[in-house]
Amino acid sequence: MIHSIVWLKHECTVQTVEGRRNWGILERLNAGEVVIGDGGFVIALEKRGYVKAGPWTPEATVTHPEAVRQLHREFLRAGANVMQTFTFYASDDKLENRGQSLKYTGAQINEAACDLAKEVASEGDALVAGGVCQTPSYLSCKSETEVKAIFKKQMEVFIKKNVDFLIAEYFEHVEEAEWAVQVLKTGGKPVAASMCIGPEGDMHGVSPAECAVRLVKAGAQIIGVNCHFDPMTCVQAVKMMKAGVEKAGLKAHYMVQPLAYHTPDCNCQGFIDLPEFPFGLEPRILTRWDMHKYAREAYNVGIRYIGGCCGFEPYHIRAVAEELAPERGFLPDASEKHGNWGAGLEMHTKPWVRARARRDYWENLKPASGRPQCPSLSTPDGWGVTKGHNDLMQQKEATSQDQLKQLFDRSKSH
Amino acid sequence: MIHSIVWLKHECTVQTVEGRRNWGILERLNAGEVVIGDGGFVIALEKRGYVKAGPWTPEATVTHPEAVRQLHREFLRAGANVMQTFTFYASDDKLENRGQSLKYTGAQINEAACDLAKEVASEGDALVAGGVCQTPSYLSCKSETEVKAIFKKQMEVFIKKNVDFLIAEYFEHVEEAEWAVQVLKTGGKPVAASMCIGPEGDMHGVSPAECAVRLVKAGAQIIGVNCHFDPMTCVQAVKMMKAGVEKAGLKAHYMVQPLAYHTPDCNCQGFIDLPEFPFGLEPRILTRWDMHKYAREAYNVGIRYIGGCCGFEPYHIRAVAEELAPERGFLPDASEKHGNWGAGLEMHTKPWVRARARRDYWENLKPASGRPQCPSLSTPDGWGVTKGHNDLMQQKEATSQDQLKQLFDRSKSH
Amino acid sequence: MIHSIVWLKHECTVQTVEGRRNWGILERLNAGEVVIGDGGFVIALEKRGYVKAGPWTPEATVTHPEAVRQLHREFLRAGANVMQTFTFYASDDKLENRGQSLKYTGAQINEAACDLAKEVASEGDALVAGGVCQTPSYLSCKSETEVKAIFKKQMEVFIKKNVDFLIAEYFEHVEEAEWAVQVLKTGGKPVAASMCIGPEGDMHGVSPAECAVRLVKAGAQIIGVNCHFDPMTCVQAVKMMKAGVEKAGLKAHYMVQPLAYHTPDCNCQGFIDLPEFPFGLEPRILTRWDMHKYAREAYNVGIRYIGGCCGFEPYHIRAVAEELAPERGFLPDASEKHGNWGAGLEMHTKPWVRARARRDYWENLKPASGRPQCPSLSTPDGWGVTKGHNDLMQQKEATSQDQLKQLFDRSKSH
Amino acid sequence: MIHSIVWLKHECTVQTVEGRRNWGILERLNAGEVVIGDGGFVIALEKRGYVKAGPWTPEATVTHPEAVRQLHREFLRAGANVMQTFTFYASDDKLENRGQSLKYTGAQINEAACDLAKEVASEGDALVAGGVCQTPSYLSCKSETEVKAIFKKQMEVFIKKNVDFLIAEYFEHVEEAEWAVQVLKTGGKPVAASMCIGPEGDMHGVSPAECAVRLVKAGAQIIGVNCHFDPMTCVQAVKMMKAGVEKAGLKAHYMVQPLAYHTPDCNCQGFIDLPEFPFGLEPRILTRWDMHKYAREAYNVGIRYIGGCCGFEPYHIRAVAEELAPERGFLPDASEKHGNWGAGLEMHTKPWVRARARRDYWENLKPASGRPQCPSLSTPDGWGVTKGHNDLMQQKEATSQDQLKQLFDRSKSH
Repeated sequence: MIHSIVWLKHECTVQTVEGRRNWGILERLNAGEVVIGDGGFVIALEKRGYVKAGPWTPEATVTHPEAVRQLHREFLRAGANVMQTFTFYASDDKLENRGQSLKYTGAQINEAACDLAKEVASEGDALVAGGVCQTPSYLSCKSETEVKAIFKKQMEVFIKKNVDFLIAEYFEHVEEAEWAVQVLKTGGKPVAASMCIGPEGDMHGVSPAECAVRLVKAGAQIIGVNCHFDPMTCVQAVKMMKAGVEKAGLKAHYMVQPLAYHTPDCNCQGFIDLPEFPFGLEPRILTRWDMHKYAREAYNVGIRYIGGCCGFEPYHIRAVAEELAPERGFLPDASEKHGNWGAGLEMHTKPWVRARARRDYWENLKPASGRPQCPSLSTPDGWGVTKGHNDLMQQKEATSQDQLKQLFDRSKSH
Repeated sequence: MIHSIVWLKHECTVQTVEGRRNWGILERLNAGEVVIGDGGFVIALEKRGYVKAGPWTPEATVTHPEAVRQLHREFLRAGANVMQTFTFYASDDKLENRGQSLKYTGAQINEAACDLAKEVASEGDALVAGGVCQTPSYLSCKSETEVKAIFKKQMEVFIKKNVDFLIAEYFEHVEEAEWAVQVLKTGGKPVAASMCIGPEGDMHGVSPAECAVRLVKAGAQIIGVNCHFDPMTCVQAVKMMKAGVEKAGLKAHYMVQPLAYHTPDCNCQGFIDLPEFPFGLEPRILTRWDMHKYAREAYNVGIRYIGGCCGFEPYHIRAVAEELAPERGFLPDASEKHGNWGAGLEMHTKPWVRARARRDYWENLKPASGRPQCPSLSTPDGWGVTKGHNDLMQQKEATSQDQLKQLFDRSKSH
Repeated sequence: MIHSIVWLKHECTVQTVEGRRNWGILERLNAGEVVIGDGGFVIALEKRGYVKAGPWTPEATVTHPEAVRQLHREFLRAGANVMQTFTFYASDDKLENRGQSLKYTGAQINEAACDLAKEVASEGDALVAGGVCQTPSYLSCKSETEVKAIFKKQMEVFIKKNVDFLIAEYFEHVEEAEWAVQVLKTGGKPVAASMCIGPEGDMHGVSPAECAVRLVKAGAQIIGVNCHFDPMTCVQAVKMMKAGVEKAGLKAHYMVQPLAYHTPDCNCQGFIDLPEFPFGLEPRILTRWDMHKYAREAYNVGIRYIGGCCGFEPYHIRAVAEELAPERGFLPDASEKHGNWGAGLEMHTKPWVRARARRDYWENLKPASGRPQCPSLSTPDGWGVTKGHNDLMQQKEATSQDQLKQLFDRSKSH
Repeated sequence: MIHSIVWLKHECTVQTVEGRRNWGILERLNAGEVVIGDGGFVIALEKRGYVKAGPWTPEATVTHPEAVRQLHREFLRAGANVMQTFTFYASDDKLENRGQSLKYTGAQINEAACDLAKEVASEGDALVAGGVCQTPSYLSCKSETEVKAIFKKQMEVFIKKNVDFLIAEYFEHVEEAEWAVQVLKTGGKPVAASMCIGPEGDMHGVSPAECAVRLVKAGAQIIGVNCHFDPMTCVQAVKMMKAGVEKAGLKAHYMVQPLAYHTPDCNCQGFIDLPEFPFGLEPRILTRWDMHKYAREAYNVGIRYIGGCCGFEPYHIRAVAEELAPERGFLPDASEKHGNWGAGLEMHTKPWVRARARRDYWENLKPASGRPQCPSLSTPDGWGVTKGHNDLMQQKEATSQDQLKQLFDRSKSH
């Protein structure tokens, strides 16, 4: 086991980093460095009161920059090497669908997001990544040209703002992911591609291995998965991607940014289909100790860009950074407020709480839910539809009461 | 049922409030208004990377004011009418025990906390409350004079900074709570007293009813409980307090600021004794819908100062404010980012998620933990010791490895 | 701990017993002997196909004597010292209500039951107890005279058949239990009285302590509880009875015959009110290791007549007898087919199953339900009615479809 | 749905059957009839005190014939059309290993088993099947000749006693199952072959489809699986077998006799590896309603020989017979003591229990375990060994204390 490590002081951070401060994402990965991603903005800011569940759009970059900036800072402090622009669902077609278009343009939101990410990145050792994701246009069967135009519009902001690299993430269909990579490649920056799939592959059943090969062929230098599944499931999917790429004689770097929710009961569409999504997920939230296991497993599988998505709070990213401190050579700044494996409890008032200041206690704890009338697993929803199905066609108007009533009735009969 | 309400626009907030902007806490409660408290700073900031679990001290008011300010703002935006100074465990005897004394004095931390709370309170309709809590001196059997001197030192900062009222909270022993109230009364501000007890009463078995009577007699105008137990348990304890006060022919206002964790398996010392405290509590976190039930129950019992403690995030306070919007006449600002009972999902991409945009769905959901190998309830620790026991004597030095080893062995044999 | 015992061969059974073969129940209890009761006939024979759930009547003594005889034999072999006549609900008023009256009289069923119990008892060291239980007449508010006449009719059969002692069991109301004891006392045999109550007392809130005193005063020499609650809860209730009797300066022997189901979520009416009663109780069935704990706890509390009720299968009684073998001085016959604490697994094919052949393995096992979509606790039904309420009035006719529909609707709205 | 059936009186059983009373197993299956198997003798008789867990041998046929006969009768009464001889592990090599050989020969036990099965079968409409199962000789790498000699010895008893057909069941390795079928075919009776495998196939990874084809080619007319997995998993495995047989252009009848335990957490070796095996399986026991779903699913998949194995009690078999009553045209005798879907509760004393007398209540119930401190799933043991591994070599001597200590230590370090 690797874990009999010497814990290094976080003071050494600066020295270690000094000599290579201007390395980009590929230099770092080529050198075998661990790159730690940030956590999930959408869910964290929903809980803080700045993002609306349902539309999930990031206009807070314009309306409440202090809240977005603070979250960036917390992830930086927790050890993240990447400040991803908060531009999820910030394409004009999505904003229009979601009722934000009247107030702010996609360009405004994307520009503000870049400024915030860059500002905080400059406070530490972090790169800025501009991100695009799946579009309502694709799900509504718009043409390749139309869909690509949407990606291009976002990318132009990222290039103007001179981010360090680009990420195409949260794609359920490999075809759309390829289109995104093809557009982003024209920007001249390194490109990462990340799908929201599990071991069963994309919504049309394309396997992780095949998805991976197609993304690498489309030009992505870093590939992986994000969102939709819990850490161990995501790592498993990336492992299958890696095997596919290697079998095809290709090369890539690998990334993983999973949920911070336990999702053993998911089907191929992931946590969206769980009955608890999005307002009852609390009992599924991972502990920091779950994150240690995740980080170690991801590392062992050969993944070097390791971060988080929905549900990841700063302390989850810190746990990743603490687990990989031996490999990275330093602890994150936020570890000044966190004892290794519960060591901070050595100073607790109650002696039986001090007795929890040890690794084997936390590593073996099976935490109770305090909810004896709840089950431990759910049966996912999901009506078996995907891209192109009438049920998924997007409309600009809010769903009408009549449309909702039909959905409610249909849901109850399931 | 009260719930067939007309939902009011949050724009009306300002108007409603305008006429009484300078009312204090007692004017509000005397007028029958609902006063919403804020949530828990210690745990929220631990997750954000600014508080260390174990010592739990609030030096972040000095070192990272932007993080503390942001959390205040989120609670204000969520509907809180009270900005409590982040001064938990900020007494000099505690800071000394916990190794913070070399860097910042209690006075520095308390002053910075007041400034931050006042700054944010002035941005909305909120009062500032200065808070003191139980001391290591009391647990170590120092004299009444010594313990009172500690409270006095903190209070003097609050008076200098001219906070709106004072709170003595988180007391396990009614005797110490009385001392605190007696000191705070000398400040000339309204005084609230809140113990961290459940229906079984304080650590020496003094019943909630008797605790309540003693606190009122000591001079507290508002009494109640905070921390240590889940919302329904805390409401139950306050109900017992209220019955005791009324039976004694006395009068008081009532407050409740519970945990945001389900704790049906606690003993009299509350969540501290649960094996999951403090790093494995995630599966116990309440959903926003649990908070609706809590807020309604607290209101029905006659409690009018309703807030939260450890585990409460801004969205939990918002849920309290949304449940009580009919009584208050307005929604909090953060509700601009939250549909009533899941209504925001009307715009979700997947139709089966849109089908969750209704109250009866969320009200009846029994959320799964995603942890089939974990139990639903735990057996609490707790070695049957309280104030004065040798095990609880405080020392300035960090616990030694020898001392820890004894604790670890003792813990395993339990 | 008592458990470092020398395990005795079951061959010694006969010798040990020889000298006192004709001792009655009181001689045994007065001498401090442990008397092991049998298990539950109603539920065991329902699973075997000879009793109908709902009416629960014991006409199988006439129609399928071989099945009843076999179950008696299994309990005898498992270590039981009492063969209780299978006469539960065998009063004429009950049989009439339940549609059995046309086929067999109460007298026929009771006589056949006595013959079977006596036949098997004579094959080993067991006494025969004739049992009566609560009547529909009482619940329907018939007079004391009418109710007592029913008990008398059953008792006359027992006296004619010369059973060893009498048991009045399964009473929810202490008043009816007193009446039963008063009748049984006229038979000149020792009388035991056992109520189906928990720590909250009888259906009218009479405490276990008061129930106990009243039963002793009515003439019962042995008192206790049976059915309705799990073993630990029943032991707790008997402990409260014992304290009441001792406080009153009276004397009695104590018996306990609990469910073999875990029922931590019951209210005062016990397992009847659990949603799982009676066809979904499987996940609650106690293991043999749970029975070891029960037997030890009952013994430690001072109970000496220790048996079982609904859910107890022969192997559960054997576990009681194995736990108390050191006190009794011998193992039951059925232990020839059971290794001490799993020792039989020493000969299992798979080595990892052989590794389970040890006490600490089974004593610490937390058995999984294999049902991740089920909760661990339920919310009991129960419409707050008891003796005399219109809902509980008995009728001879089968419930009509109209009556049922009203019940179904009422149930769904709960 | 098929379920809007007219329920037939059980009186019609005799008439329906009269005309074809002497049909054999193949005539019945060829005619499309449903053949209901019996349940599990080993576990049922262990609980009744006549079989020892660990060795699991059936010497009770000689020592306690009344107990074996009674269980046969209960299954017959519950609707079983097959009385399988209680000859599990009754081969001489197994008896020798398990310490029974000194007392009774395999021949004695097998002959007594045939007599009991025939006696009870003649009381109703049932066939007698002689059964052989996997041998310690095979696991210890004895030669094909030696292993086959063991099967031949048991078969000769069955032929002498003129059973109706033969079953080779409970094989973990298809090779041994083929050998058994080849031997049994020489008896001139119909041969059924049933493996204890799940969808992952045999212990060497041979798929269910390939196992099936090999068994059909070896001469089995009926193939399927028994034991080791829960009903739905077993049905799934038989479905895969059926697909394999059909793909190969072959023909067969199909049988399934699963566990009555929920085993979603098993690995390829099934319930043996679960930590709860064999003394903590109670929380996993299926309800009668689970059996309705199983019977319907098995029928829908095309299986016509539907029975049970370990854990199946008579009421479980009755539930299978009740579910398939519309197809069979009659109810089993034991249904005289069982209302359809809880209808017997129409006569319960408590009105809220009468409200459970309906199908949708029981069909949708999620039964609670009453064990809030237990998990819902376990992690299986299993040390990755199979036929030929040193750990599995059989010895005549009881395992020594030294050998056990090694196992205990190894187990704890897992």
